[in-house]
Amino acid sequence: LKKNHNDKHSHHKLTIYGDRGMTLEQEINDSNNYYLHKNIAVIHKKPTPVQIVKVDYPKRSAAVIKEAYFRKASTTDYNGVYRGKYIDFDAKETKNKISFPLANFHKHQVEHMRQCVQQGGLCFALIKFVQTDELFLFKATDLFTYWDNQFNGGKKSIKKDIIKKLGINIQYSLNPTIPYLKAVDKLLNSKGES
Amino acid sequence: LKKNHNDKHSHHKLTIYGDRGMTLEQEINDSNNYYLHKNIAVIHKKPTPVQIVKVDYPKRSAAVIKEAYFRKASTTDYNGVYRGKYIDFDAKETKNKISFPLANFHKHQVEHMRQCVQQGGLCFALIKFVQTDELFLFKATDLFTYWDNQFNGGKKSIKKDIIKKLGINIQYSLNPTIPYLKAVDKLLNSKGES
Ligand SMILES: [Mg+2]
Ligand SMILES: [Mg+2]
Repeated sequence: LKKNHNDKHSHHKLTIYGDRGMTLEQEINDSNNYYLHKNIAVIHKKPTPVQIVKVDYPKRSAAVIKEAYFRKASTTDYNGVYRGKYIDFDAKETKNKISFPLANFHKHQVEHMRQCVQQGGLCFALIKFVQTDELFLFKATDLFTYWDNQFNGGKKSIKKDIIKKLGINIQYSLNPTIPYLKAVDKLLNSKGES
Repeated sequence: LKKNHNDKHSHHKLTIYGDRGMTLEQEINDSNNYYLHKNIAVIHKKPTPVQIVKVDYPKRSAAVIKEAYFRKASTTDYNGVYRGKYIDFDAKETKNKISFPLANFHKHQVEHMRQCVQQGGLCFALIKFVQTDELFLFKATDLFTYWDNQFNGGKKSIKKDIIKKLGINIQYSLNPTIPYLKAVDKLLNSKGES
């Protein structure tokens, strides 16, 4: 009885039972791997941006970063190409049960999505309500409405009901864990694009 | 007489005199900034991938990464969206005068470009011969030919003459430093796309 299962079986178990223990980011990386190896899409998570201050170069071994700091991402976490389209999105989890706090985004990310949409990219957020394992694709153009609104007296959060109505629900599956490109297909098809 | 010029004038000087002192990466970042602020394209350099091993969380100050290692990039350095197209490329400098050594690429980068091309992305390398300040856009599909050839008895490098013939020459300019999207326009237009 090995403790460190690294085989397909343990992976499937994880997947079937709602991925408890997997973060949304892990679920997406997992799904992107699936899409990549099936030649369906090329979508990667960008590396965590780090400000490197001090590096040691020991003889006969690899350089060691001795001092560095986390930087705020100026873009979203994920981008890539699918059906010839530029895809760009961020993943957000909330423990909130009835609404999604807009503070989960920072200004630069929203600005970045606006720029991408302007260039013809397809941008969205994957929003997960972790208490109920509910996952939605929420279009960037809808996000912009609520984002901008908060500076004009609007709410600082988006009600889950609104996300249910405007967004596309994503059901967990075996493979990929998160079949979010099905939701992207709906978007692309409704735009009359292929 | 300030020593630390941070104004437009000193920047322009740098640009006019062939950007001595600027690496190709800096020149591209500079150009991407220009394209971004002119609403022409959204193309960013991905952060350097780092394997974080140890992090300190001091009270009342930012987390400090105390041990980390550089990882090999599994993709290219740059991607983004332009004219609705997914753009993906890497920047390569060589001190070699007559040819470009294929060892400047690693296998994963070429594989990544192949995957992106398959999904309808536009992929290329920006290759700079630093001894002569010559810069070329070289299509990924051409790169694949020479890359694959090296494993079938072909040369381990591409002659500059070939790069001149198959690639698109990019002339340094004032703003952006490297107007490489002009070369991309040629590619897109020759494909009959808009
Ligand atoms: Mg995120
Ligand atoms: Mg590079």
